[in-house]
Amino acid sequence: MAQGSELYAVADFCLIPMGTGEPSVAEYIAECQRILEKSGLHFKMHGYGTNLEGPWSAVCKAIGDCHAAVHAKGAPRIATDIRIGTRVDKDIAPGTGNDSKVARVREILEKDTK
Amino acid sequence: MAQGSELYAVADFCLIPMGTGEPSVAEYIAECQRILEKSGLHFKMHGYGTNLEGPWSAVCKAIGDCHAAVHAKGAPRIATDIRIGTRVDKDIAPGTGNDSKVARVREILEKDTK
Amino acid sequence: MAQGSELYAVADFCLIPMGTGEPSVAEYIAECQRILEKSGLHFKMHGYGTNLEGPWSAVCKAIGDCHAAVHAKGAPRIATDIRIGTRVDKDIAPGTGNDSKVARVREILEKDTK
Amino acid sequence: MAQGSELYAVADFCLIPMGTGEPSVAEYIAECQRILEKSGLHFKMHGYGTNLEGPWSAVCKAIGDCHAAVHAKGAPRIATDIRIGTRVDKDIAPGTGNDSKVARVREILEKDTK
Repeated sequence: MAQGSELYAVADFCLIPMGTGEPSVAEYIAECQRILEKSGLHFKMHGYGTNLEGPWSAVCKAIGDCHAAVHAKGAPRIATDIRIGTRVDKDIAPGTGNDSKVARVREILEKDTK
Repeated sequence: MAQGSELYAVADFCLIPMGTGEPSVAEYIAECQRILEKSGLHFKMHGYGTNLEGPWSAVCKAIGDCHAAVHAKGAPRIATDIRIGTRVDKDIAPGTGNDSKVARVREILEKDTK
Repeated sequence: MAQGSELYAVADFCLIPMGTGEPSVAEYIAECQRILEKSGLHFKMHGYGTNLEGPWSAVCKAIGDCHAAVHAKGAPRIATDIRIGTRVDKDIAPGTGNDSKVARVREILEKDTK
Repeated sequence: MAQGSELYAVADFCLIPMGTGEPSVAEYIAECQRILEKSGLHFKMHGYGTNLEGPWSAVCKAIGDCHAAVHAKGAPRIATDIRIGTRVDKDIAPGTGNDSKVARVREILEKDTK
């Protein structure tokens, strides 16, 4: 939902360093987590990316900062996949967008076993 | 890594039902979780998708089965984003691909605070 | 739309070789185009991926074959992003799914200038 | 490559309106093309998304403007998939990033038939 004039973005991204000469990317992803920590945004790493949410431009800036940091760490090229969603049918309390989606699905599934 | 002749796929997917007339998709995502449960594959839902891994064709079939089930539940159209990775530089013990990536990054970050 | 019992998939994928030691990936992408040529499926490369369509399992198999070929060419690890869509509200004539989407949007835009 | 202090982004995005009540999305995608036209950035629609490139923040802003316009047109919720790449190993002449990737692959493939 818009906050002031800006959309609130619930996102997820997976950053891939390229041309690094080794298949492991954990050091680069760790660096991204440090950058996100500094961003002040709500985020949570999972097996194939990191959930991230906040005002649209802050989310984009944080991912851009990750690119800059991963280049600084030696990756000549980076390809990132971002999933980003916005909605205007209801307000999202800051930091609850991704978690509340999971909670809602779990709520439905719990009824299955009753 | 290849298991027999097939690549082992570590994946993540986000399925979006379209043309449903309501912005909420939790019922459809819950249905996908039921389908994945039956697939026998290792999977884990997060805020913007579901981690999933197994032999390449089994992973693809499971996601296709989710499409069929979501259509059966009433969605006329579906768009899914899949991230899928394979590697031949090391073996992945079945079901550990996504979790071990997270563990490796956490291991690096833990050293930061020491 | 289902063809027999299988969904027809209109897709797009972007394959990223990892750990190759050089940022350029053109040789690997060219190899994928050769694989797709042999698949018999309708495909078309663009600046950030390749449109691809056909029966669900054939599309998945073709992308898996690309992974195998890119590994064979030396990439130890690969990460691919796939967008894949299905619909049951209308039939798609084989090979026309992606092109007809573009045509429909252009048709709308052409009215703007009249 | 950085231009001043900002990374140049070569991207592609696929925007999915949700909860619209009808499976067709062409009107919404046409609206995005109008927004991109106004952005001044280099872009090109294909069957499953739109290539787009420019300074990182301009690319992000343009996609955010598309979300705002698609919400204004009636979609209560939107999910977008963005692929975005940056590189620091060579300069990209503005507007040539996506096209030059295609040209390089075609160049390689043309040698196959000689």
